[in-house]
Amino acid sequence: MNQDYIQPDPWSIIEGDFDVERVKSSESLFSIGNGVMGQRANFEEQYSGPSFQGSYIGGVYYPDKTKVGWWKNGYPEYFAKVLNAPNWIGINVFVNDEPLDLFNCVSVHNFTRELNMKEGYLSRSFKAILKNNIEIEVKATRFVSIVNNELGAIKFEVTPINQEAEVRFDPYLDGSITNTDANWEERFWQTLEVKADDQRGFMVSKTLKTEFHVGTYMESEIYKASEKQALTSNAKIDEDRISFSYKISAGKGESATIIKYAGYVTDMNHKRADLISSAASVLDEAKEKGFDQLKNEQKEAWAKIWEMADITISGDVKAQQGIRFNIFQLNQTYLGKDERLNIGPKGFTGEKYGGSTYWDTEAYCIPFYMATKDQKVARNLLSYRYNHLEKAKENASKLGFTNGAALYPMVTMNGEESHNEWEITFEEIHRNGAMVFAIYNYVRFTGDFSYIPEKGLEVMIAVARFWNQRANFSKKKDKYVILGVTGPNEYENNVNNNFYTNYIAKWCLNYCIESIEKVKSGYEDDYQRVMGLTGLNEGEIGSWKDVAENMYFPYSEEHGVYLQQDGFLDKELIPVADLKQRPINQKWSWDRILRSCYIKQADVLQGFYFFEDQFSKEDLEKHFDFYEPFTVHESSLSPCVHSIQAAVLGRMEQAYDFYVRTARLDLDDYNKEVEEGCHITSMAGTWMSIVEGFGGMRVIDDKLSFNPKIPEQWDSYSFKINFRDRILKVDVHPDHTNFSLEGDEALEILVNGENVNVETGETFKYSNDSM
Amino acid sequence: MNQDYIQPDPWSIIEGDFDVERVKSSESLFSIGNGVMGQRANFEEQYSGPSFQGSYIGGVYYPDKTKVGWWKNGYPEYFAKVLNAPNWIGINVFVNDEPLDLFNCVSVHNFTRELNMKEGYLSRSFKAILKNNIEIEVKATRFVSIVNNELGAIKFEVTPINQEAEVRFDPYLDGSITNTDANWEERFWQTLEVKADDQRGFMVSKTLKTEFHVGTYMESEIYKASEKQALTSNAKIDEDRISFSYKISAGKGESATIIKYAGYVTDMNHKRADLISSAASVLDEAKEKGFDQLKNEQKEAWAKIWEMADITISGDVKAQQGIRFNIFQLNQTYLGKDERLNIGPKGFTGEKYGGSTYWDTEAYCIPFYMATKDQKVARNLLSYRYNHLEKAKENASKLGFTNGAALYPMVTMNGEESHNEWEITFEEIHRNGAMVFAIYNYVRFTGDFSYIPEKGLEVMIAVARFWNQRANFSKKKDKYVILGVTGPNEYENNVNNNFYTNYIAKWCLNYCIESIEKVKSGYEDDYQRVMGLTGLNEGEIGSWKDVAENMYFPYSEEHGVYLQQDGFLDKELIPVADLKQRPINQKWSWDRILRSCYIKQADVLQGFYFFEDQFSKEDLEKHFDFYEPFTVHESSLSPCVHSIQAAVLGRMEQAYDFYVRTARLDLDDYNKEVEEGCHITSMAGTWMSIVEGFGGMRVIDDKLSFNPKIPEQWDSYSFKINFRDRILKVDVHPDHTNFSLEGDEALEILVNGENVNVETGETFKYSNDSM
Repeated sequence: MNQDYIQPDPWSIIEGDFDVERVKSSESLFSIGNGVMGQRANFEEQYSGPSFQGSYIGGVYYPDKTKVGWWKNGYPEYFAKVLNAPNWIGINVFVNDEPLDLFNCVSVHNFTRELNMKEGYLSRSFKAILKNNIEIEVKATRFVSIVNNELGAIKFEVTPINQEAEVRFDPYLDGSITNTDANWEERFWQTLEVKADDQRGFMVSKTLKTEFHVGTYMESEIYKASEKQALTSNAKIDEDRISFSYKISAGKGESATIIKYAGYVTDMNHKRADLISSAASVLDEAKEKGFDQLKNEQKEAWAKIWEMADITISGDVKAQQGIRFNIFQLNQTYLGKDERLNIGPKGFTGEKYGGSTYWDTEAYCIPFYMATKDQKVARNLLSYRYNHLEKAKENASKLGFTNGAALYPMVTMNGEESHNEWEITFEEIHRNGAMVFAIYNYVRFTGDFSYIPEKGLEVMIAVARFWNQRANFSKKKDKYVILGVTGPNEYENNVNNNFYTNYIAKWCLNYCIESIEKVKSGYEDDYQRVMGLTGLNEGEIGSWKDVAENMYFPYSEEHGVYLQQDGFLDKELIPVADLKQRPINQKWSWDRILRSCYIKQADVLQGFYFFEDQFSKEDLEKHFDFYEPFTVHESSLSPCVHSIQAAVLGRMEQAYDFYVRTARLDLDDYNKEVEEGCHITSMAGTWMSIVEGFGGMRVIDDKLSFNPKIPEQWDSYSFKINFRDRILKVDVHPDHTNFSLEGDEALEILVNGENVNVETGETFKYSNDSM
Repeated sequence: MNQDYIQPDPWSIIEGDFDVERVKSSESLFSIGNGVMGQRANFEEQYSGPSFQGSYIGGVYYPDKTKVGWWKNGYPEYFAKVLNAPNWIGINVFVNDEPLDLFNCVSVHNFTRELNMKEGYLSRSFKAILKNNIEIEVKATRFVSIVNNELGAIKFEVTPINQEAEVRFDPYLDGSITNTDANWEERFWQTLEVKADDQRGFMVSKTLKTEFHVGTYMESEIYKASEKQALTSNAKIDEDRISFSYKISAGKGESATIIKYAGYVTDMNHKRADLISSAASVLDEAKEKGFDQLKNEQKEAWAKIWEMADITISGDVKAQQGIRFNIFQLNQTYLGKDERLNIGPKGFTGEKYGGSTYWDTEAYCIPFYMATKDQKVARNLLSYRYNHLEKAKENASKLGFTNGAALYPMVTMNGEESHNEWEITFEEIHRNGAMVFAIYNYVRFTGDFSYIPEKGLEVMIAVARFWNQRANFSKKKDKYVILGVTGPNEYENNVNNNFYTNYIAKWCLNYCIESIEKVKSGYEDDYQRVMGLTGLNEGEIGSWKDVAENMYFPYSEEHGVYLQQDGFLDKELIPVADLKQRPINQKWSWDRILRSCYIKQADVLQGFYFFEDQFSKEDLEKHFDFYEPFTVHESSLSPCVHSIQAAVLGRMEQAYDFYVRTARLDLDDYNKEVEEGCHITSMAGTWMSIVEGFGGMRVIDDKLSFNPKIPEQWDSYSFKINFRDRILKVDVHPDHTNFSLEGDEALEILVNGENVNVETGETFKYSNDSM
């Protein structure tokens, strides 16, 4: 953890030093993305120090042959991986033929890097004395456009300080790219064509096996001071690379500047034959607008996102910076426009964990997108899984399930399971429940039941079939049990009757039965279609009812709590506070972790979070008090749930501590791993910590409900909720909360259980006295 | 399974056909070895069809970098692997320059291969028409000497049948060898020197990382008909290879013969600088004796082994062949002369499972070696583990154990753990118990308690410390529990309170306490030394007693049986007989296997086997009847235990079926995997099936005890037992058993519980009437 490295600022992430040891971490933190493509904050110019290069394109993946020590039946043949794509940012810089390389300068000073989250760009400036003793000043700015999501733009300015000098820019595209996490050191890309058209460079590459075709392109403008220069470079074309070379004789104090427009077009959106012409069109438009206008459009587009998604916090700049960083990264990762895309755990900031989609999306991300975007976005996320339903059935059938049962994958790019650790791949089946919970959550929030007859019911039936087959009747317990699972707490494997899993299984069965009834009575055509498709019959539903009604839940009379799994109370229950070695995932061998009582992430409490309305506050308190002391939060997805529940229980200090941990996990690098990429999906949990935790937002009987609380460190905080076409702003102060509304009609909400009518265009002030 | 491929014969393994599909399987079955080196039955001449080349040297291994999909803390850095060593058998054969290659002949007929177990050699003969239409007859014989265990010898005879022809033999050594199971396709060997001295060829190679130095050598003799030819070939020397080339003009019907003496000398037994001179000495001696004398010595040496180890079966040639094959392979793998060596699960017949030593040695092999060899052999096997004690302590400390606790490895070459599957490596800890059980078993059988004060006690204390730390107190159960283990049944992972594990843990603690007392009272010096070394104190022993006395065992009142683990009765208990898909390890995904009731190998029953005297026969019957129906025997180590117990229970048909399955597992290729190598360690279980199962041999209060029974398929069977310097022959017939004795004094034994005195030199006939 390094709490002081990133400078506190409400709107920017700022690094005030060049530290070779921090380069890889900063490459993650300062990543930029537009939901379709993304780029780690690698330097444009040559850098020979330790670096982790990463350029990513949403949806473009490679099936990397599975690597395991001991093959288990059922393992998938490959792991679908986020791909490091051809380099579009590269601009090698030479000053009097001496390369600019921050790892090899005589000195570097005044180094500053800023990720401007308000306007959506990355900038960097520094002074450096090169090996030839020429001192230069550099200012570089880049962004990937969220207006035209196939375009990136870079402005790179070099000013010789102590003498005149010849500045040379060699902008290039490089297709000889590898993934650092490749299993077998194979290449994933093949370059098909490298081509220059005057000063434009094009490269067409395809991914091996998956055959995604990608066009990478570039064109540059050159300025001396502010004067545009004519370009006359010949392209240098190699097998996997194209570069140009531009020289500017700059006087002392006179700037030489390159503007590079570059990016990707792919056959996900264009015909393969048209990739180069499509790229040329993007370039035409970019050149037409020019860098400044593009940057201005970027600022305006981000302003629109912030207008809806921003959370303000007064009196705590680090908390403010943290939440904005989380919201910014989420929006850089996924904007919800394309139902083929999803929210990778590292977004476009790294390639760890390979695939793009985990249950994180359904369990953590959907609430954020539902409340801060048009409801179509959440619907797209649901449809993504609907579109993978057949693959989920295949996954289940590979594990021996029949009759159209579906098991959604632990990790996927295309619906097929990619993960290969038996205790996760085959046993962390609770993920299947999250698919259905997300549908329920969507309908609860948006009121749009139509998704269920249209698509959701098919998913729910396939998942219900899975649970029905996966549970077995224990004669001994005279109940249905679910054996051999891994719950959300991955620090227990192959356990029996994980409370969370059993609970969500039972819930899925009941919710499916209930939904079938509703569709039957209200959507006759869909009902007939789905029944025809699935061949569902009454006997099957009867069996579901039987399993749901007779599901076993381990319970301790002594402690008055549900047990995380059958054997939990046989463990030595020593609180985390007494634990000397942490984090245990680095200090302990795996078996020791497994037989310990330590919980990686909320598990029973995750169930209490999802199904809060099905338990009393006293129950929540009892379970929180039992499990929290054993929870080590070594998953990024854990503190947010505990923060929300601490807030519900009025334990604001604890809630605040958990909040800070989740909000600044990456900025302060709690787990010393940010160099691998940021924890994107858990960032949605940070948003929940404020909105659902401190703000106490719920949806109860089609109404928004709030229970506003505020940590004592804060003067006030505010957030907005897009609820059924009205936008409610909630502005919480220590002694009151202001509610104000945009939209056409008034909104009836609940505040601390009281019905309150908020009129459009007015601010309703709810004083704490009224409690 | 292919029950008819190998021809029934009491003393030989015979293959009567050349079947390309069977080549790899036969390469395993017809392997030869002498306890120090071994060789799969690869052809001497070129063979371009599918083949699995394997030459192995005991104790020579390579640490192959661990390959896993997901690293878990505690995994070893490498897997110590049995090494495929430089090829010493190669003789390429040309007839009028046409290569002999059985994969590319016009035709092959009269092909016969024989593994002559009585005399310890492999022979092969066939006729073939080569592509140049020359028909030849070939007779090849080879063996690796058990008299001089650094020497192999080959006689290869080619006779042109349909015309005269020039026969060319190119004998070679080849060091460019790879392991088929290399994790990273790395080379394990480096050739240091290739040298010819007249007609002798030498190659010195070293293993990378481990730096074993091995000299491979050869020299040939050439005969035309029976007339020895002068040799004049120049050596052809390449980087990793040396060859000679000898031509003989053979008339029609006239044989051309090469005799090749070759083998290995290693720096385990010689100075590195002397490898070539040591090899030259071996060659001198070999040439001096000549092929026929060497082969004769081999026959005599094997006769001595058979004299003691043979089991005869009358009336069932396949059963006879099976048991002899098992005894033969065990002796080929390990002769007990070198305490640095051990018994690899595939012996010298393949490289699967990598390391040389599993708990198989202690649990299955030691009884065979104790009863058929000098007791020094078993002592050497025990000392092997004593010599690895410090490594076992290191293994345990890597997993967080302290205070000199030891965890013996699952797989090893040098004492370090090699295995890398968390549920096995870290959790299949019952192996630790087998180390102590073997000591107990040795003392029980040999009466040689001295091993315990000398070496055994240190092992026992370190293991007791492990169990003491590994068990934890469950408040809920008010007992000590052992959580998160894999029992002998590897089809359950990470279970709690595996009966076998808990039982052997308790037993180890008690046996250690008991042994400490005995050593204290009888071996004062050793006691002081060991107490000084271990720093053991009364408090610690008190804690052991507490754990042992209060160990928890899951028990079912309903079924009257101990449960394999806490959750066993929650499973669906469907007998194997009703199971449609088998073997489940090929048909089912891993999770499905884990949550099923199916047992890979004896688990609770393994405990009943080890500790038979601690349970009643009624208990055994109850547990056998409960567990046997769920046991799929998909481990080679399983049927023998069930065979023995079926015999105890008088269920001779079942005992016989299990016997055949274990005895002919490889010959009939039950599991369709013999091409990877034979199941060497389970072969000792076959021996136990007869001696302990049918013969009912036990050691009770320092006396041999028998309960002879005979399967109705057999006329009679006999075996010998070396018991405390006397050799007892037991010859069982349907209505009587003959006991006869070699040695100086009479032996009092128990037969069906009756005391019987067997005089030396006499045969005591025990009639079944007397029962």
